[in-house]
Amino acid sequence: MKSTALVDAGTFEVESRERPQPEASEVLVDVSDVGICGSDLHWYDHGRMDDRIVEDPLVLGHESAGRVIEVGRDVDRVAVGDEVAIEPGVPCGRCQYCRSGRYNLCQDVAFMATPGTDGAFREYVAWPADFVYRLPSSISTREGALCEPISVGIQAVRRAEIDVGDTVLVMGAGPIGTLAMDVAKAAGAANLVVVDIVPSKLDRAAERGATLTIDARETDVAKAVRDEFGAGVDVAIEATGASPAIEVTLDAPRPDGTVVLIGLAPDETVPMDTFELVRRQIDVRGSYRFANTYPTAISLLTAGEVDATGIMDFEMSFDRIGDAFERAKEPDVIKGMISMD
Amino acid sequence: MKSTALVDAGTFEVESRERPQPEASEVLVDVSDVGICGSDLHWYDHGRMDDRIVEDPLVLGHESAGRVIEVGRDVDRVAVGDEVAIEPGVPCGRCQYCRSGRYNLCQDVAFMATPGTDGAFREYVAWPADFVYRLPSSISTREGALCEPISVGIQAVRRAEIDVGDTVLVMGAGPIGTLAMDVAKAAGAANLVVVDIVPSKLDRAAERGATLTIDARETDVAKAVRDEFGAGVDVAIEATGASPAIEVTLDAPRPDGTVVLIGLAPDETVPMDTFELVRRQIDVRGSYRFANTYPTAISLLTAGEVDATGIMDFEMSFDRIGDAFERAKEPDVIKGMISMD
Amino acid sequence: MKSTALVDAGTFEVESRERPQPEASEVLVDVSDVGICGSDLHWYDHGRMDDRIVEDPLVLGHESAGRVIEVGRDVDRVAVGDEVAIEPGVPCGRCQYCRSGRYNLCQDVAFMATPGTDGAFREYVAWPADFVYRLPSSISTREGALCEPISVGIQAVRRAEIDVGDTVLVMGAGPIGTLAMDVAKAAGAANLVVVDIVPSKLDRAAERGATLTIDARETDVAKAVRDEFGAGVDVAIEATGASPAIEVTLDAPRPDGTVVLIGLAPDETVPMDTFELVRRQIDVRGSYRFANTYPTAISLLTAGEVDATGIMDFEMSFDRIGDAFERAKEPDVIKGMISMD
Amino acid sequence: MKSTALVDAGTFEVESRERPQPEASEVLVDVSDVGICGSDLHWYDHGRMDDRIVEDPLVLGHESAGRVIEVGRDVDRVAVGDEVAIEPGVPCGRCQYCRSGRYNLCQDVAFMATPGTDGAFREYVAWPADFVYRLPSSISTREGALCEPISVGIQAVRRAEIDVGDTVLVMGAGPIGTLAMDVAKAAGAANLVVVDIVPSKLDRAAERGATLTIDARETDVAKAVRDEFGAGVDVAIEATGASPAIEVTLDAPRPDGTVVLIGLAPDETVPMDTFELVRRQIDVRGSYRFANTYPTAISLLTAGEVDATGIMDFEMSFDRIGDAFERAKEPDVIKGMISMD
Repeated sequence: MKSTALVDAGTFEVESRERPQPEASEVLVDVSDVGICGSDLHWYDHGRMDDRIVEDPLVLGHESAGRVIEVGRDVDRVAVGDEVAIEPGVPCGRCQYCRSGRYNLCQDVAFMATPGTDGAFREYVAWPADFVYRLPSSISTREGALCEPISVGIQAVRRAEIDVGDTVLVMGAGPIGTLAMDVAKAAGAANLVVVDIVPSKLDRAAERGATLTIDARETDVAKAVRDEFGAGVDVAIEATGASPAIEVTLDAPRPDGTVVLIGLAPDETVPMDTFELVRRQIDVRGSYRFANTYPTAISLLTAGEVDATGIMDFEMSFDRIGDAFERAKEPDVIKGMISMD
Repeated sequence: MKSTALVDAGTFEVESRERPQPEASEVLVDVSDVGICGSDLHWYDHGRMDDRIVEDPLVLGHESAGRVIEVGRDVDRVAVGDEVAIEPGVPCGRCQYCRSGRYNLCQDVAFMATPGTDGAFREYVAWPADFVYRLPSSISTREGALCEPISVGIQAVRRAEIDVGDTVLVMGAGPIGTLAMDVAKAAGAANLVVVDIVPSKLDRAAERGATLTIDARETDVAKAVRDEFGAGVDVAIEATGASPAIEVTLDAPRPDGTVVLIGLAPDETVPMDTFELVRRQIDVRGSYRFANTYPTAISLLTAGEVDATGIMDFEMSFDRIGDAFERAKEPDVIKGMISMD
Repeated sequence: MKSTALVDAGTFEVESRERPQPEASEVLVDVSDVGICGSDLHWYDHGRMDDRIVEDPLVLGHESAGRVIEVGRDVDRVAVGDEVAIEPGVPCGRCQYCRSGRYNLCQDVAFMATPGTDGAFREYVAWPADFVYRLPSSISTREGALCEPISVGIQAVRRAEIDVGDTVLVMGAGPIGTLAMDVAKAAGAANLVVVDIVPSKLDRAAERGATLTIDARETDVAKAVRDEFGAGVDVAIEATGASPAIEVTLDAPRPDGTVVLIGLAPDETVPMDTFELVRRQIDVRGSYRFANTYPTAISLLTAGEVDATGIMDFEMSFDRIGDAFERAKEPDVIKGMISMD
Repeated sequence: MKSTALVDAGTFEVESRERPQPEASEVLVDVSDVGICGSDLHWYDHGRMDDRIVEDPLVLGHESAGRVIEVGRDVDRVAVGDEVAIEPGVPCGRCQYCRSGRYNLCQDVAFMATPGTDGAFREYVAWPADFVYRLPSSISTREGALCEPISVGIQAVRRAEIDVGDTVLVMGAGPIGTLAMDVAKAAGAANLVVVDIVPSKLDRAAERGATLTIDARETDVAKAVRDEFGAGVDVAIEATGASPAIEVTLDAPRPDGTVVLIGLAPDETVPMDTFELVRRQIDVRGSYRFANTYPTAISLLTAGEVDATGIMDFEMSFDRIGDAFERAKEPDVIKGMISMD
């Protein structure tokens, strides 16, 4: 089968690999669609992520869906012919985090497109049947591939404990922020404030239902929020990982409000005004990846509450993956897709 | 001013009363619209409610909105000319329930249209300014009057702790059930099952977005739910107060699911299969009236997430209140309104 | 090895069985101590439990601890020589309940001493290493065996969401009620009311720290509770499964209070006053078995917050199991133990 | 009556004031005991707190109890002769925070010993009856005065949502940290780690039940915690407000653990490693003052779960208040008391 691996910063290599054989509890998926994630771009640009370095060729891509073409002998959860979304992280299933339902915190997870676990930019993936999810006929594999970033949004929104009618601010109108906005709306947000520094992304957020958009380069976000909502927003979700944006987000909530951090800001700290956190009794909650979200993502896509297609800027074929990565880096792009067929 | 009071079961009397003077912390509201609630009908039919009996003439009506025409000297929350929804229950503000934010459980509440506290079927109401809420220009007083039953739905949905993507069953497609359905959808429900015994109400629920409607006279609800959703629904909300309906609702959730009871079933008990409650680890939660819901109700109306107008079957003028009560008792009526002007 | 199985109601049969071989992920435990549970007595008396019937010989006993004498090749969690408590239910690890941390609700659990899964009244048990827990040297295997009923108490107390300083009523001063009382105290209860119908059990509850004990045959529980605590208790935990006791428990909480049901009342329903549940906004929560409790049970034993030894009335050797079961049925017995060595 | 006010940094002035007259809803309390709080010392040393400056003479002291000697005509909550603890903050009772039970966040609170509201270092205080709490005969007014710092601990522990059996770290063994430790233990903590830089305070924490004490000047706290508890503590409570201590505390929890911040660190920010907060999915929660805690504080004192007397280092008479403040500043003092009689 054809596979494309990152061999060094900026360099993909097309390989011909042996088609994997599914084990008894696995399925073989003919991959149809893969989204390009910001972390794929980070690996591509730097050949590393914090202290993890690409030494052996690494197949990227962890937002994927396809069709089941073979099932192991113990599998009854899906059948040959099913279209499925693939959950990219397979936890150990045994540690205290797995057993208490927080498998996103498992230390022994095998997560696609990190050293040791190949991702989905290849024709076929053999994967544990328990981590693939049948898509109903109304959901395409292209949409299904985005169950992954939708899941990041679901995890953040669960962490936020939104109350129906809340005002929610989302910092960052990239793929995570935009999908988190959709999920927050589905979860009860009546007012949605979206902040970014790229006008075209803000326009798209407004078209999707943001009730207020703020260009952080032109407007004092805290002031704009307080002008509009008095003491601040009920919930603020940070989806950029940029230090100045995190600072602004920490300042957005009303007393007893909540900040959820999704964005990863490696190699730097953020100055936190703990006096204000105490005096206003703010909750700041990290949200890491996701657990038990794929069925919810599929429900939300089915109910039309999340619009995956609307964030896709372009789709390229598998043989143009290098071009696709270059284009995906442009600032006004929210999501690029690779069609594997 | 003109006022209409229940003097005995089935008998209204039109009275001319002195127009009330607002105290320092009160406002005087020129009442525009009042909804007819099931409890109004109960008082009207029986002249009593459980152990409370109408001895003195009782002005009914507790779903109301109008225009502020006078404000007490300490009031700065609203101004003359504002259109407002009136929250009908004024708690003591001092007991442990009030001080911990659960004022719906205050034992010293003055609640409109219960003996001792007149309701809104009168031209003017003097009411504490803290319990009236300004309506934005996009919301009519007719819609605003229904902040009250919407609040009952909000309280139930908060008690339900719906997770985004959940399947929610609502037992009863009357005003409370229908509005609770809207709120549940706004709060994250991706699938909504509505059960009733009146086909026209089920049709209207379907038009509003119920994904499955069940006529409980024709269909085994538990079986239908399990055929469709496997182990059961995530959340079931009981809005009828009828004993057989409560039994069916208790059986609807999946393991670790939740039942919220709103409907009041006086004078009878419901046989509860506690073995199943334990084995399936079900939560059964009462939900009583509401606290801190009016701003949320207004947000949901403003955001278009709750459709108050769509449940109104008819509107009659104040002088036809008797006719309106008779018509409101017809089984296919969801909500009748009185226009006070 | 020697094993004792129930072959029919009231009849144990001593068998000689082949000593089990642990699989790669299992350990072999030389069983030291086994507690006699009410469900063991139920199987023993009736040869059945609800619709499950003893057809093949069934080894009873699911409260057990012992010493690891052999480990499978993949096991690194415990070592030969470790003293361990054995968690008796091994869930599938794959279903939605397992993956979301609620494995007590797994439908494919293998639970000791239910048809299909032998219990611990035998010399050796081979068991998945992930479901045995090392006991620190300060905890004996006799105490460790009672991690099981302590776990039932922990699950109930977690479900109760006790706030520090709460008043908690426990219905039933048998093993589950008494241990739940200890856990409730550890979890914040400042006042503990214990209700039973056996004076000696109430005396023992008082010695352990119950602040009020009530003999339900002599005293109107609801009245006694309200005389002492005004509107009712914050939390009531039902540990008998007897229908009249459940009724009394449902009536015990204050408005916005919580009832947790542990006791299983098969073959009958309990009349529930849903009017009161709504009006007082009560939560009634089932609590089934336990999940993720063994480390907590060991912490509580180690910290001296739960007194397992104090509920043990007698200990008999394995060859007197029949006598032990007869004695365990006496009403003043809380817990009988079998020493397997 | 005699009153002592701060007129400038470091200067108390004894005044003779007119004895206050209680209003209809107030009581007059003959103050018996007042604790000296760190914030009293801060006002005394600096004559200011952040942007609030002592311009008019300010009576300090907000940890107080005494005897009711007169009641307003509307008061039935307490009676003349009752010994009571005084809750020092009286909120507006009308804003969204008051009405939703979070009156600690009320913007219009009158809080003793802040400019505009005199504190308790005076013979008599007239105070709203709803904010005094009768002490049972087993609790002295000296202990009762410390309901205030106990309340700070209760608020923090509620915010922490401790699970029974948890390991809890408390940063700072001053009055707040020590009392928070007691409350955390009462609320379920099975292991208690206390960190300070004063050996005598650590010794006293150990005597009160801390299972591990760490001198942060000598030991790497994070390393010590991980050596003992693996991935970290379940909950860490920060009670110093010192920037380096906050940093250490943020690093203490295991994945999915919680940090509660009580200590106020004015005029500086704390560098926060948000990458770690996200990756370990940590909750950081501010905890401000308290709401609905006094009845709980009295329950905990009554049940012997909090030891107020044990933190008192000295007691001086009212006429030695200046000496008492000087002594209270010594590093090994946890709590100094003033006897007002």
